[in-house]
Amino acid sequence: MKSNMEGMFVRNSANPILTAEDLPCKAFFILNPGAVKFKGEYLLLVDVFHSEGGIIFWLARSRDGVNFNFDPAPVKWPESYTWWKENGVYDPRITQVEDEYFIMYGSHNNALGTRLGIVKTRDFENFERVSICSEINNRNGVLFPEKINGLYCRLDRPFGGGEHSPCDMWMSFSPDLIYWGESRPVMTTRPAHWDHLKLGGGAVPIRINGGWLCIYHGVAECCSGSIYSIFAAILDEKEPWKVLARSKYPLLFPETPYERSGRVTNVVFTCNALLENDGTLKMYYGAADACIGLAEANINDVIKACDSGYRFML
Amino acid sequence: MKSNMEGMFVRNSANPILTAEDLPCKAFFILNPGAVKFKGEYLLLVDVFHSEGGIIFWLARSRDGVNFNFDPAPVKWPESYTWWKENGVYDPRITQVEDEYFIMYGSHNNALGTRLGIVKTRDFENFERVSICSEINNRNGVLFPEKINGLYCRLDRPFGGGEHSPCDMWMSFSPDLIYWGESRPVMTTRPAHWDHLKLGGGAVPIRINGGWLCIYHGVAECCSGSIYSIFAAILDEKEPWKVLARSKYPLLFPETPYERSGRVTNVVFTCNALLENDGTLKMYYGAADACIGLAEANINDVIKACDSGYRFML
Repeated sequence: MKSNMEGMFVRNSANPILTAEDLPCKAFFILNPGAVKFKGEYLLLVDVFHSEGGIIFWLARSRDGVNFNFDPAPVKWPESYTWWKENGVYDPRITQVEDEYFIMYGSHNNALGTRLGIVKTRDFENFERVSICSEINNRNGVLFPEKINGLYCRLDRPFGGGEHSPCDMWMSFSPDLIYWGESRPVMTTRPAHWDHLKLGGGAVPIRINGGWLCIYHGVAECCSGSIYSIFAAILDEKEPWKVLARSKYPLLFPETPYERSGRVTNVVFTCNALLENDGTLKMYYGAADACIGLAEANINDVIKACDSGYRFML
Repeated sequence: MKSNMEGMFVRNSANPILTAEDLPCKAFFILNPGAVKFKGEYLLLVDVFHSEGGIIFWLARSRDGVNFNFDPAPVKWPESYTWWKENGVYDPRITQVEDEYFIMYGSHNNALGTRLGIVKTRDFENFERVSICSEINNRNGVLFPEKINGLYCRLDRPFGGGEHSPCDMWMSFSPDLIYWGESRPVMTTRPAHWDHLKLGGGAVPIRINGGWLCIYHGVAECCSGSIYSIFAAILDEKEPWKVLARSKYPLLFPETPYERSGRVTNVVFTCNALLENDGTLKMYYGAADACIGLAEANINDVIKACDSGYRFML
C-alpha cells in the first residue's frame, strides 16, 4: 500500500509478511520481532501469544528477507531463575557484540510486572541466561552493539507511576551486563507531536558518522487509545545521552488495515532494523500487536529526516 | 507517655527530642533522621523542610543520646551530578562499613521523581558522592553493613505503578556501590495486618546470630490516609532475601499527639536504631513527618517478637 502520508519507510508489497496463521500451532497473535542476519539467513525472533495464554519466542527464517517460515517448534528458552519466575517474554532486541548475540527483552511475571532480561546465544539454537538487568517496571531495553567509554550501554524506559510517571527514554550503563547504574534521561515527550504521550527505544542503534542512529517508538493519545508510530533520532557517539537530532514527524505511521486493527489498534513497533550493504534499512515491525510487516528506507534519508520536518503534522 | 498497647519500644520521656523550633533557622518540619555513634557523640542527620521549600540535611549532636543540639549550619552536601539535579534529600540511612560511613538516601528531582543516592563520609564534615544507585521511583534504600557473598547488598522499595504497583521490600546487589542488579522481592504486604498496604526498609540491619535483624516500616490504610508503624523481621545471614521470622504486630505505633498530627498524620518511621553495649536499641524516629522521637527496647525482646504475636490486632 502506498502511504497517504509519504512516510519515509516504504512497506513491502507482501505485507503482512507473517501472521499467526503461518505458525504450526494455534496462536492468538504475533508481534514485535527481533531481527538479525545470521549465516546467510534472515531470522526473526517472534513473540507468539499462544493459545494457552502466555507469550513465547519462536524463530522464523528466510533467505530473501521477505518470505519467512516458522521453525517447527518454539525456541528452547532457558529456565527461569529461582528468584524470578518468567511467565512471558516479549519485544526482543537482538544485538550482536563481537561473535555473541544478546537478546534484551521484556521479562514478565504475572504477579510482579515486567522488567528487562538478557539472554545470549552464538547459534540461535542454544540460549543462555545472562541476567535480569533492570528493576521492576522497566521495558524497551535496547543494548548498544559496542561498549561506550568502557561500559555496556542500553536504552530503557522505566514506566513506574508513583508521584511522577516517567514515560521517557532513559539510558543505563554496566561493566558486565549484570550490574547496571548511572541511569539518566535521554529523550522526553514533545507536546503537540505524535510522541506526546510516551516514547522509548525501538531498533538497536546503528553506528553512523559521529553518532548513533536510533529508530524509536513514540506514542500519541486519542479518545480511543494510543497510536504507536516510529521516529528516528541521532545520539552522540561518545556521549550517547545527548540527542543531536530528532525527526519531527513519524517515519512510519499506522495506516494500513493490519496496522490499524488487531490486538492493540494503531501500532507500528520495531525492535531491529537491519542495514544492508547498499544502505537499505530493512525494518521489521509488529503491526497492531497481531502480525509482522517489513518496511524499507535508505539510511541516509532517515538521517536527513532527523534534521528536518517535512512529514505530516499532528 | 506509656503506651496503651504495650508496644515493644518504650518512648523516651523527653519526646519529642527534636523539633523544627530547635533549629537556628526557620523551617516547617524535621523528619526521619539517620543516626550514628561517632567519636563519643550521637549524631542525627536530620531532614529539614526549610522555609524555602526544599529538604536539606542538618546535623544534630548529643553526648547522652537524648539532648541534641543542631549545628549552626546545615551539612555541606555535595553538588548534584550534571546528569541528575537533586532538588531535595530525605530518609538518610547511615551505614558504617569499616572506617567509612555511607549514607543511602532519597534523592528527589522535582520533574522526574525520587531515586536512591549514596554519599560517603569519614568525619561527618566532608561528604563525597558515590553514586545515584537506583532507577527512577525507588526509595527506602538501606545498605547492609557488610558485603554478603562478596557483594554489597541493600533493601529497596521500587514504587512505580505501571500495570502493577509494587509496594514491597526488595533487595539489590552490587560489586562496587555504583552498578546494581539481581533485584528480587524479599517481603510482601500481609492482608489484615498493619502492613497491609505497603512496606519497606527502616533501620540499617543489625547482625545477630545466624541472621540480620531488620526493623522495617509497614503501612496500613484507613479512610483518612495511611498509618505508618514499625515492625521487625529476621533475614537469613547468607541468603538475606529469605525472611526467617517476622513480627505479627507493630513494635511502635503512632499513639502520641506528636506522632498522630503533623505534616503527615499517624507516622512513626525510623532510619537507624543504634545497639548499645547492654543490648539496648536506641531507635531514633521521625514522628508525623514533623519532629523526632527516641524509643528504646532490648534487642532480645525485639528478636523474640519476630517469632510470636502478642501485640495488638488490627
